[in-house]
Amino acid sequence: MRVTVWGENVHERRDPEVAAIYPEGMHEAIAQGIREQGGADVSVCTATLDQPEQGLGRVVLGATDVLTWWGHAAHDDVADDVVRRVCDRVRGGMGLVVLHSGHYSRVFRELMGTTCALRWRNAGERELVWTVAPAHPIADGLPDVFAIPRQETYGEFFDVPPPDELVFISSFAGGEVFRSGCCFARGRGRIFYFSPGDQEYPVYHQAEVRRVIANAVRWAAPRGRVRDAPFEPIHADPP
Amino acid sequence: MRVTVWGENVHERRDPEVAAIYPEGMHEAIAQGIREQGGADVSVCTATLDQPEQGLGRVVLGATDVLTWWGHAAHDDVADDVVRRVCDRVRGGMGLVVLHSGHYSRVFRELMGTTCALRWRNAGERELVWTVAPAHPIADGLPDVFAIPRQETYGEFFDVPPPDELVFISSFAGGEVFRSGCCFARGRGRIFYFSPGDQEYPVYHQAEVRRVIANAVRWAAPRGRVRDAPFEPIHADPP
Amino acid sequence: MRVTVWGENVHERRDPEVAAIYPEGMHEAIAQGIREQGGADVSVCTATLDQPEQGLGRVVLGATDVLTWWGHAAHDDVADDVVRRVCDRVRGGMGLVVLHSGHYSRVFRELMGTTCALRWRNAGERELVWTVAPAHPIADGLPDVFAIPRQETYGEFFDVPPPDELVFISSFAGGEVFRSGCCFARGRGRIFYFSPGDQEYPVYHQAEVRRVIANAVRWAAPRGRVRDAPFEPIHADPP
Amino acid sequence: MRVTVWGENVHERRDPEVAAIYPEGMHEAIAQGIREQGGADVSVCTATLDQPEQGLGRVVLGATDVLTWWGHAAHDDVADDVVRRVCDRVRGGMGLVVLHSGHYSRVFRELMGTTCALRWRNAGERELVWTVAPAHPIADGLPDVFAIPRQETYGEFFDVPPPDELVFISSFAGGEVFRSGCCFARGRGRIFYFSPGDQEYPVYHQAEVRRVIANAVRWAAPRGRVRDAPFEPIHADPP
Repeated sequence: MRVTVWGENVHERRDPEVAAIYPEGMHEAIAQGIREQGGADVSVCTATLDQPEQGLGRVVLGATDVLTWWGHAAHDDVADDVVRRVCDRVRGGMGLVVLHSGHYSRVFRELMGTTCALRWRNAGERELVWTVAPAHPIADGLPDVFAIPRQETYGEFFDVPPPDELVFISSFAGGEVFRSGCCFARGRGRIFYFSPGDQEYPVYHQAEVRRVIANAVRWAAPRGRVRDAPFEPIHADPP
Repeated sequence: MRVTVWGENVHERRDPEVAAIYPEGMHEAIAQGIREQGGADVSVCTATLDQPEQGLGRVVLGATDVLTWWGHAAHDDVADDVVRRVCDRVRGGMGLVVLHSGHYSRVFRELMGTTCALRWRNAGERELVWTVAPAHPIADGLPDVFAIPRQETYGEFFDVPPPDELVFISSFAGGEVFRSGCCFARGRGRIFYFSPGDQEYPVYHQAEVRRVIANAVRWAAPRGRVRDAPFEPIHADPP
Repeated sequence: MRVTVWGENVHERRDPEVAAIYPEGMHEAIAQGIREQGGADVSVCTATLDQPEQGLGRVVLGATDVLTWWGHAAHDDVADDVVRRVCDRVRGGMGLVVLHSGHYSRVFRELMGTTCALRWRNAGERELVWTVAPAHPIADGLPDVFAIPRQETYGEFFDVPPPDELVFISSFAGGEVFRSGCCFARGRGRIFYFSPGDQEYPVYHQAEVRRVIANAVRWAAPRGRVRDAPFEPIHADPP
Repeated sequence: MRVTVWGENVHERRDPEVAAIYPEGMHEAIAQGIREQGGADVSVCTATLDQPEQGLGRVVLGATDVLTWWGHAAHDDVADDVVRRVCDRVRGGMGLVVLHSGHYSRVFRELMGTTCALRWRNAGERELVWTVAPAHPIADGLPDVFAIPRQETYGEFFDVPPPDELVFISSFAGGEVFRSGCCFARGRGRIFYFSPGDQEYPVYHQAEVRRVIANAVRWAAPRGRVRDAPFEPIHADPP
């Protein structure tokens, strides 16, 4: 299984506080977590916005089974054809794991059909992540609840379609709740959204968070060959 | 629409603190709320465990479109044939609104197929009820979030099947989260579980809680005639 | 409740066979069905592509609680700003009932996030519409199964997200199956897709089909005020 | 992964026609299919009703990760304590794959909370099995549609709760449709119902059917340790 960890890589280069937490970029920490916990058959590459074709040209995508996405400061800089190419590849079978502020990326919004808006506040509060689907493979090996000591607060209403499966719900010290682990199917592809991971806190160094992402990558992996294009109408005789 | 509010009516008669909050019984407060907010076409009766046939004989059930259920101290006293009769009537189309500790009633457990166990603590904490399905009729007229000043704490994992629709999620001051408003279909019947309402707090006097229950009663109401019995196998020629 | 029945109104004016079935346009037949079966509190208007602002200007949409959509030959002629306006209004709470070939409209595709492609064949085959959610209000008053004598065949895979609720499944004489009645939530809005209704057959004159559409309009109706715009991020203090 | 294939083993011993198709019993054909297509890490045993403890004593169940269930003629002979033990083990994490007439087993009915009744007719008609969830692991390697040349006809309404995920829908030559591949979660356990497989036809010798069952076994396999008992209430301090 070939995983591409895509990172916007903007905060890490311009904000010294973020660079101190993620000296090699957030994408490297995320990639490292998947390498650690994803299993021996997973090979992980990274790609960033500042690369040619924004890191997501046809060759890279054509060799990607699961893509993870973290973006925040530069959502609007992602080019139209990159958005189209990624969305089509997801519909054709590529898995997609969208992280934290990636909820507001163009890719995620297009695949959801909703605004993906939410309630938020950055106060470094404690987040508790509760498992509400103990039989789900993305919850494998996770405790009933785990704490992220300091995190940006996300709260409902989170404007996504009702998820096909809801795996985690978070609470925050201020009293907010958030559907923090959500599964969606689109065409031949599977999408998992996981909300922890603001750039100001070392969330992607935490073992439980890495485990969730590694589980999600395995869950989202395509079974058969990923198609170059999504479904088209079929004019067919009776079977 | 004919609503029967069933109450166990045990705490109210033996615990002075509960009787002080609900001098006419919790069932009367719940019934009053539905009368207040349920609309002009709703007629509401009450029934209790200490009545003949435990308040739920064939005549009563046969004249009930939606049943609400509150129980706690005497789940095991509900007779086998009452459980069977209620479950069959739900499967035949009667709406069912299960409240708070009713999660552990024999009726709810049989209809869910799971243990319906949960995490709990009675510390009189603040509960925040968040709407996560703003398009749902049970959320009609409710704010994005409302507070119940003091409540028993319920927490995940709540062992029910994944609800067909999730309308509310609660947080508690201690950090727990709970899927507090859950929709289920069983046969021709619709079931809503709503978790607020411990007997030690005046929850059923609160306007928002009454609104939720009144909305749920309307949502759960059968469209056509309620059948006396649930589905049976049909041996049929081609249509 | 104010319903706007939008029709592309192309086939009816250029194909004599269609005009013979729907002399006043398909939209008039659909509107007539809702008037007949929708209840006394429903007022129904029609709008068509050839009108100013393609029939869907701000004033019309601002006075619409539920919009029904039939299109086929001119999906690409619907203007960008009309698509945006309709989708935003749905996300803000307006109900949407998408009919037959409307599955491939720009509006539906944007709200679904998928291709909405399907398998098809126009052989005038018998369609059987089976109820698989007898407790659902959209199935109210419908039999277990009803036949549409001649219809275009639609078949799986229908590339939409898994519907929140599946109300009808159709079979066709050739052996195809199709999820013909599907519910979706998007923001504050509710969407129902119903597949019967090719322009070559008198489907919208059939009582059962009219009943489904009338039920769907009631189900999709917004409870509160429709917002002019969908959700936006909320930066908020703790509740 | 340890799979136990449970078979009622009644028809095979009393009906010569069935014995001709399944000389070693239906359970052996099902087991053989899983061995063939389930992967190298799967070990498969069989168990039957006529064995001590009806084949499902504590030792056997304690060594079972996934149980498959075929029954028809002797549902009522399955003992109360076997039903309780199997249901509790599923709630504790054991996977369960219920086949064909197993829909009416005591185990499945208790876990669903519904009657599990359906429409049926045994006319040896062609069944077409359509994939409606191409991204689902249970659809892995299956075509868009496959035919079972002769089968008992099952039709809607199938009285189960709305499945968490719907993977297959079947049509029959007579025009019936049936949700033939349905996923459910109960506690820590996962359940898949798959309808093909009447004893009078050689369905479990067919490659596609074997593939579905083998996929389902993998999908239903527990991730962590199966608990001896399902969830119980937890009285807990704040996390």
